[in-house]
Amino acid sequence: MNEIKSFASDNWSGVCPEVMEALVKVNHGHIAAYGELDEAVTTAAIEKFKKYFGNDIAVFFVYNGTSANVLGTSHVIRSYQAIVAAHSAHMNDDECGAPEKISGSKILQLETEDGKIKPEQILPLLNSIGFQHHSQPKIISISQVTEKGTVYKPEEVKALAEFAHAHNMYLHMDGARISNAAVSLGMDFKSFTVDVGVDVLSFGGTKNGLMFGEAVVFLNKVLAADFEYTRKQGMQLHSKMRFISTQFDRYLTDELWKKNASHANKMAEMLSEKLQQFEQVIVTRKTEANGVFAIIPKEVLPKVQEEYFFHVWDVNTSEVRLMCSWDTAPEDIDGFVAALKKWVK
Amino acid sequence: MNEIKSFASDNWSGVCPEVMEALVKVNHGHIAAYGELDEAVTTAAIEKFKKYFGNDIAVFFVYNGTSANVLGTSHVIRSYQAIVAAHSAHMNDDECGAPEKISGSKILQLETEDGKIKPEQILPLLNSIGFQHHSQPKIISISQVTEKGTVYKPEEVKALAEFAHAHNMYLHMDGARISNAAVSLGMDFKSFTVDVGVDVLSFGGTKNGLMFGEAVVFLNKVLAADFEYTRKQGMQLHSKMRFISTQFDRYLTDELWKKNASHANKMAEMLSEKLQQFEQVIVTRKTEANGVFAIIPKEVLPKVQEEYFFHVWDVNTSEVRLMCSWDTAPEDIDGFVAALKKWVK
Amino acid sequence: MNEIKSFASDNWSGVCPEVMEALVKVNHGHIAAYGELDEAVTTAAIEKFKKYFGNDIAVFFVYNGTSANVLGTSHVIRSYQAIVAAHSAHMNDDECGAPEKISGSKILQLETEDGKIKPEQILPLLNSIGFQHHSQPKIISISQVTEKGTVYKPEEVKALAEFAHAHNMYLHMDGARISNAAVSLGMDFKSFTVDVGVDVLSFGGTKNGLMFGEAVVFLNKVLAADFEYTRKQGMQLHSKMRFISTQFDRYLTDELWKKNASHANKMAEMLSEKLQQFEQVIVTRKTEANGVFAIIPKEVLPKVQEEYFFHVWDVNTSEVRLMCSWDTAPEDIDGFVAALKKWVK
Amino acid sequence: MNEIKSFASDNWSGVCPEVMEALVKVNHGHIAAYGELDEAVTTAAIEKFKKYFGNDIAVFFVYNGTSANVLGTSHVIRSYQAIVAAHSAHMNDDECGAPEKISGSKILQLETEDGKIKPEQILPLLNSIGFQHHSQPKIISISQVTEKGTVYKPEEVKALAEFAHAHNMYLHMDGARISNAAVSLGMDFKSFTVDVGVDVLSFGGTKNGLMFGEAVVFLNKVLAADFEYTRKQGMQLHSKMRFISTQFDRYLTDELWKKNASHANKMAEMLSEKLQQFEQVIVTRKTEANGVFAIIPKEVLPKVQEEYFFHVWDVNTSEVRLMCSWDTAPEDIDGFVAALKKWVK
Repeated sequence: MNEIKSFASDNWSGVCPEVMEALVKVNHGHIAAYGELDEAVTTAAIEKFKKYFGNDIAVFFVYNGTSANVLGTSHVIRSYQAIVAAHSAHMNDDECGAPEKISGSKILQLETEDGKIKPEQILPLLNSIGFQHHSQPKIISISQVTEKGTVYKPEEVKALAEFAHAHNMYLHMDGARISNAAVSLGMDFKSFTVDVGVDVLSFGGTKNGLMFGEAVVFLNKVLAADFEYTRKQGMQLHSKMRFISTQFDRYLTDELWKKNASHANKMAEMLSEKLQQFEQVIVTRKTEANGVFAIIPKEVLPKVQEEYFFHVWDVNTSEVRLMCSWDTAPEDIDGFVAALKKWVK
Repeated sequence: MNEIKSFASDNWSGVCPEVMEALVKVNHGHIAAYGELDEAVTTAAIEKFKKYFGNDIAVFFVYNGTSANVLGTSHVIRSYQAIVAAHSAHMNDDECGAPEKISGSKILQLETEDGKIKPEQILPLLNSIGFQHHSQPKIISISQVTEKGTVYKPEEVKALAEFAHAHNMYLHMDGARISNAAVSLGMDFKSFTVDVGVDVLSFGGTKNGLMFGEAVVFLNKVLAADFEYTRKQGMQLHSKMRFISTQFDRYLTDELWKKNASHANKMAEMLSEKLQQFEQVIVTRKTEANGVFAIIPKEVLPKVQEEYFFHVWDVNTSEVRLMCSWDTAPEDIDGFVAALKKWVK
Repeated sequence: MNEIKSFASDNWSGVCPEVMEALVKVNHGHIAAYGELDEAVTTAAIEKFKKYFGNDIAVFFVYNGTSANVLGTSHVIRSYQAIVAAHSAHMNDDECGAPEKISGSKILQLETEDGKIKPEQILPLLNSIGFQHHSQPKIISISQVTEKGTVYKPEEVKALAEFAHAHNMYLHMDGARISNAAVSLGMDFKSFTVDVGVDVLSFGGTKNGLMFGEAVVFLNKVLAADFEYTRKQGMQLHSKMRFISTQFDRYLTDELWKKNASHANKMAEMLSEKLQQFEQVIVTRKTEANGVFAIIPKEVLPKVQEEYFFHVWDVNTSEVRLMCSWDTAPEDIDGFVAALKKWVK
Repeated sequence: MNEIKSFASDNWSGVCPEVMEALVKVNHGHIAAYGELDEAVTTAAIEKFKKYFGNDIAVFFVYNGTSANVLGTSHVIRSYQAIVAAHSAHMNDDECGAPEKISGSKILQLETEDGKIKPEQILPLLNSIGFQHHSQPKIISISQVTEKGTVYKPEEVKALAEFAHAHNMYLHMDGARISNAAVSLGMDFKSFTVDVGVDVLSFGGTKNGLMFGEAVVFLNKVLAADFEYTRKQGMQLHSKMRFISTQFDRYLTDELWKKNASHANKMAEMLSEKLQQFEQVIVTRKTEANGVFAIIPKEVLPKVQEEYFFHVWDVNTSEVRLMCSWDTAPEDIDGFVAALKKWVK
């Protein structure tokens, strides 16, 4: 299978032109490997993070979201401590067991309707604390945007952070789509992370226009001690580091992240609206970011998928997930709707 | 510290123009993520590998050399089985314990003068076989080019492969600089890998002009079964896979790998020759690939390092390592020699 | 806290006299360590297992049930493969994350009412097979007796085994209380293990009169290859092996296991019956083995616990678990009932 | 193979009568499992340790020496930190890779003549500190008695402890034969552990008359925090804990440890002396504890081994190891010498 216009995932799209330009531009001469020796490109990129999150942070670049989540959490816990997460969390459900393998820890899974976990769900897990036969809950991990397309409000994050800290735990945020969340909330990053108590953040960019690379951002800086060894032993230290760094530098310049995410969110909104005109299509969740969830009649799916690829989220209910990207064009929406029209009322 | 002409490592250089061009070119439209659904760019890149290594192989792209070595070996052993390697091997010495962490295995280390291990060194380790108190030797890992700048001859590799297979073991080759080795030997890749019995190969490109990415190539194809899960759980599955694939596709087209490696090797040879004109400098090893090892008077080192960065390999003997790259220019050699001339006879 | 008559667990009791006598008897002279060199005590014990399970098995002694479960399962899977188990399974719920730590694998948890899992619950998990982002289900683990006091019927085990084998999976049985199950079913061990397709069995004795030690029994013998290394690396190889072996030898002689388990089960039945005479006590589950589950009014619990220790199973419903042991006396039952009578109608 | 008088290892012997008596004695009634609820037998045993080592310690019982060493060290380091040990150390050489598997850490191995490591050997390893590509040395592990039969003097231990602490590292002692060392030095345990800076101690008894069980003793108590979870997840928590505890209680009462170890050491000394009367036998090392190392003509070995089993330590030099135990009788020595006399001058 080759190129096809797709609503499958925001990682089916390519690299946005500004980032590609930065990659080309940084490609001259020799520069210290591994970001070592205070190499300038990486230093500059980290400075950009500080502009957004404040100076009291530590930033480390890794290759992808899997490792940002796994290494960022495993670094701050021991193997007998547990990660608390939604069953639907990418960390739990889509990493082929990487957290268990790398940290040796158990994930305590919570069922949710909308992908968001709540403090009261975690409360019963605290019965295990001090009981040597049970993994000890130590870090709560949430996804922002969640895997179900919803966005935590700052006060929801704050409630979880306060709960975590009250019980000697940490709060981790999987921000693979953090820019889409910021745009959705109409806020800067800081308002729903640093300001409300998030300790460790996986800051993603690949789903919003980067080629590769993710950042582990320790907002609770003391937790970052020795992370360089965890990264290296975790096989995530890039030698030609400048090529990750420059992408994040550009991404955080002139609000490129916002431009890309705004577009993706807007396309999702447009798609969501247009779907609602179909009698036979049910938009199942409020479209808060760049994903649209909808039930499309089962018999129609293969026919539409011939023209536009997308994932069926729930084979039983025939719910599909339609992701919009920084490069989704209004014509793609129109084309998809037209394709749908052939088969659905 | 910022840009400086350097002989520190071949990963201080950037991306060669042909590869950068390929990256720009592949960047349009949507394409299946993760190399899934027989996505065309990745399929084409794998075909290129088959042209060089034959059809009976399996190829998987990962992010870097650390993971190619660690995942490629750990996939074919169990944690109670051991990896046999030179003490100086990158796997043993420069991965912050990643093999032990990821595979749970022990590395049985052999001392070498020139970075090359020999079957007779491994023989005593076989006394452990069948003895439940000892890790069981199961895979031999060699580096081609070695960390000491030497190159295994095909018959040396063959002897190790035959030894391995005679004792129910496998042979792994860390080919981070395999192109430099091929050029040094004047051979195609196959002659000193497939044809002489290598089972698993880490095929590197980053040190020879790529931006990121490494390939795990199972020459003994049956060992590849299920490797996709090892890769994913090992946090090495890239979502926008085309951007690794296209680099390898281009690298293996029109012998780009050979062009780059030939240049680097030639520069090393030139440097080696010019160093030999200094009375006070001793070239300590035969320059077989793109690295020159030489003893430079201790007191001079900091002065030369002000102009050209390089690593001191052995602080006791004042031996330094000078790596040449695909982009090392004759003027860099001349400049380095001129800098040296200021301080050394 | 010191000695107290207790229904807390069957591991609060001591060693039955026959086993203690065997321990004393085997304690003379020198004997090969680790069960090596075909040491006679261990060889004899393994022969006893073969009398019960047939000759085509492999038996390994380890220290406890945790390790029998963890090593027996992890040995036959890779870290990217998953264990399917009931949420309430000891492996999942009471090992402080040992399976995840040691095998690096994920446990896919199924909710059950009675502690028993059914093939149709596993079916949806098979959607993950072949999908590289998900852990691959590879082994089903059941507890016999379950943690909820129920006993799988042979045909139920068989259905799971057939399901497992049909999908290229294995079936593991946690037999910490296998003797109680055998007595409950009125069958020999073979009928509900070997004969119905169990591949790996944790054969327990500590809860039924042994001092320490558990056996990993590979009924599917081919899976046992190299297990001696897994045991040693898993820190479970005892040097003075004869002291585990002799216990199992005695346990499997003259049906000592049956004598002990019959007694414990009978006591549980008696207790269950006597509890049913209380209006305010609800026996919540059919008493199939040596555990009685009952709801006792919440306010009464601390008072009764002053005289007889037991665990509250569910703080919300005030359900308690009362375990009987090989040494529970009818007077203990009477005493407990008398204590209860002071507070409950 | 069955019973044979042996000098193979001190774990070929059985349980000394005093310990067996204690085991029988503790076997009555019900008692809290896992040493929980301040169970009295375990509490008393821990008090005995405090008499010897002072009150400011934490004691945890595990099943064997492998786990005491592995869990005691891995608990105080992270996987990117390394263990420094002699190549000949049991931890490195005889655990089938258990430390690497369980801790994920690398062992940095030092060559020694006599099994003892010295601070100056560790010094070069410190070059790795702060260098992210290398495992970070964090704990030094020594064996007391060493695997080569030698005993560290307190000042030698002190020098290592001071070195460790000066470099932010810990000192671990593998005391599988600590009683033999104490007798050899003519000192109490404290003088060469607590008083000279040892942080973590594996306190062994199985090789000196116990049935099973080993103690992890945190002399640097702050390091013990949460160790109960490491023990449980490490599959080393015994349910019927009293049967380990009572053994240690008895072992540390009336200096039973000293009685047993004195006897074993004395027998070794006697054996050593008698061997020196043979012209063709060379006692290769000073006999400091309960092991004698000697070169016996190669052709004689199988003949003597028919009567008395022992291990050949070095097949090349024909050096053998002869271990004496708490139950080695003078007649065993005489018998061995007589057997030797048949073949050797």
